[in-house]
Amino acid sequence: MKRNSYAIIGSGALGGLYGGMLAKAGFDVHFLLNSDYQHVSEQGLKVQSTWGDFHLPQVNAYDNAAAMPACDVTIVALKTVRNHLLPDLLPATTREGGVVLVLQNGLGVEVESAAIVGEDRVLGGCCFLCSNKVGPGHIHHMDFGRIVFGEYSRQEITPRAQTICDELNSANIDAQVSADLGAVRWRKLMWNIPFNGLSVALNASTKEIVDTPSSFALADAIIREVHQGAAACGVDVPESAIAKTMGNTVKMVPYDSSMRIDYLNGRPMELQAILGNPLAAAKASGHEMPRVEMLYQSLQFMDKAAGK
Amino acid sequence: MKRNSYAIIGSGALGGLYGGMLAKAGFDVHFLLNSDYQHVSEQGLKVQSTWGDFHLPQVNAYDNAAAMPACDVTIVALKTVRNHLLPDLLPATTREGGVVLVLQNGLGVEVESAAIVGEDRVLGGCCFLCSNKVGPGHIHHMDFGRIVFGEYSRQEITPRAQTICDELNSANIDAQVSADLGAVRWRKLMWNIPFNGLSVALNASTKEIVDTPSSFALADAIIREVHQGAAACGVDVPESAIAKTMGNTVKMVPYDSSMRIDYLNGRPMELQAILGNPLAAAKASGHEMPRVEMLYQSLQFMDKAAGK
Repeated sequence: MKRNSYAIIGSGALGGLYGGMLAKAGFDVHFLLNSDYQHVSEQGLKVQSTWGDFHLPQVNAYDNAAAMPACDVTIVALKTVRNHLLPDLLPATTREGGVVLVLQNGLGVEVESAAIVGEDRVLGGCCFLCSNKVGPGHIHHMDFGRIVFGEYSRQEITPRAQTICDELNSANIDAQVSADLGAVRWRKLMWNIPFNGLSVALNASTKEIVDTPSSFALADAIIREVHQGAAACGVDVPESAIAKTMGNTVKMVPYDSSMRIDYLNGRPMELQAILGNPLAAAKASGHEMPRVEMLYQSLQFMDKAAGK
Repeated sequence: MKRNSYAIIGSGALGGLYGGMLAKAGFDVHFLLNSDYQHVSEQGLKVQSTWGDFHLPQVNAYDNAAAMPACDVTIVALKTVRNHLLPDLLPATTREGGVVLVLQNGLGVEVESAAIVGEDRVLGGCCFLCSNKVGPGHIHHMDFGRIVFGEYSRQEITPRAQTICDELNSANIDAQVSADLGAVRWRKLMWNIPFNGLSVALNASTKEIVDTPSSFALADAIIREVHQGAAACGVDVPESAIAKTMGNTVKMVPYDSSMRIDYLNGRPMELQAILGNPLAAAKASGHEMPRVEMLYQSLQFMDKAAGK
């Protein structure tokens, strides 16, 4: 059976790692790059990873979606704040009948892709991953790495999703398919909302947050709010996930969340996708999340004060 | 009738202003100073004020409570984080039968004084005041200035409270007596909790907070929580105080709250008095204030991260 070809839109900490792993395994992978285009087309992609370091001296690099071949699977690994670019990108990179796999943080982040290619051609997933881009074409993957993904428009594990999962696994990527993308997304939000949010609001690493009693208690309270928010939206995440999320973070390497790195580098934060959309979804179900709302408002203030 | 003599414990932005006004009006006022003692005993007290600038070249300055005469009224204008010093100070500065007027921020701040002189000799009050100490013995009073105070152990306006009020008024200080100190304190907390707290948490002046929609909404939500917390504690603050507090702050000169100044200068913040005690009081009445709690936890983290 012919293997899927992959277009990677946004080749940073996430797209660079997974795309690089696929390319290393011999898949036909095409990387769309922005600021790193020149560097990567000349020097390739360098990955330091807990899965093993590697360097791909030559990759299929593009600075322009129109120049890319239409692929079977387009992985959206852009920041959500750039989703307005997708109408210009997805039609070129996705072959007729091909699918789009949205591996972005947050909730409701498949909406833009679904509007372009149709919701039945969209999959979504979350990456439980500590990875940063540390230089042009240079990814540092520090911890974890599992992708959990599933269909966007139906609660089942389809053959096409299973095929993609098998291919990812064959490239030594820790991937799982889920029949419940909503549960996957809310489960991830239980980490992203407290730890992305507080790392900026408190100007702290994850380690500092969990090592200090007051912020540990706060993170725990926020996780509980998110867990209840999920339930209000009809998404059942096991109660045990609360302690697990805190426990994993305690054991995690000291980590600067992607939101903190964005903030410290003067880039806009993914506030709408990670905080605004979940808040709105819970509110639409009649559920308030006062701490999450306060975090959202605080970060909006900080975003604006930083001039974005 | 003989006028009251006054001991001022803590001669900063608050004690320096009110003590200075009393001394200027000819009252017998004795100032206990710490770091500014040398400067004030040599050069006196300088006050820039919306009530008129003045300079008192000679004031009764002390660096040691034991050297002070026992006065009729001791005004406690220290930061609450230094209340552990009061057992060494109040007995010397307060004559037998004299009273202690606690003009500190927060809730439950009379407890230490009451334990020393007896609760029937304690009055408490709040200052609705924008004033900063800008140099040794140099006070800058920028806006507002009203003192509202009352008896600590009973809900009535006593003759002694009225006398003190009349004396303050005669010194051109905007003072009022209240029969309900609890309501006064909670009313003040409706400003102090959101604006002291957020000015540190968001690293912002009051003007920046009220000028930005997200932080305006957050401050407003916090004020509402405090208002409900007061009600849960049996303290009735009129609903109109919510809009009034926001409105006054919008009209206020851009102001760095005392908590922000403490934080920026590496001093401990009055977290227990301003946030911890009200939270505990509300919780004891079965009422949660999630945003206030989050603010308290965030500020505790920041206090610790700053090394205090």
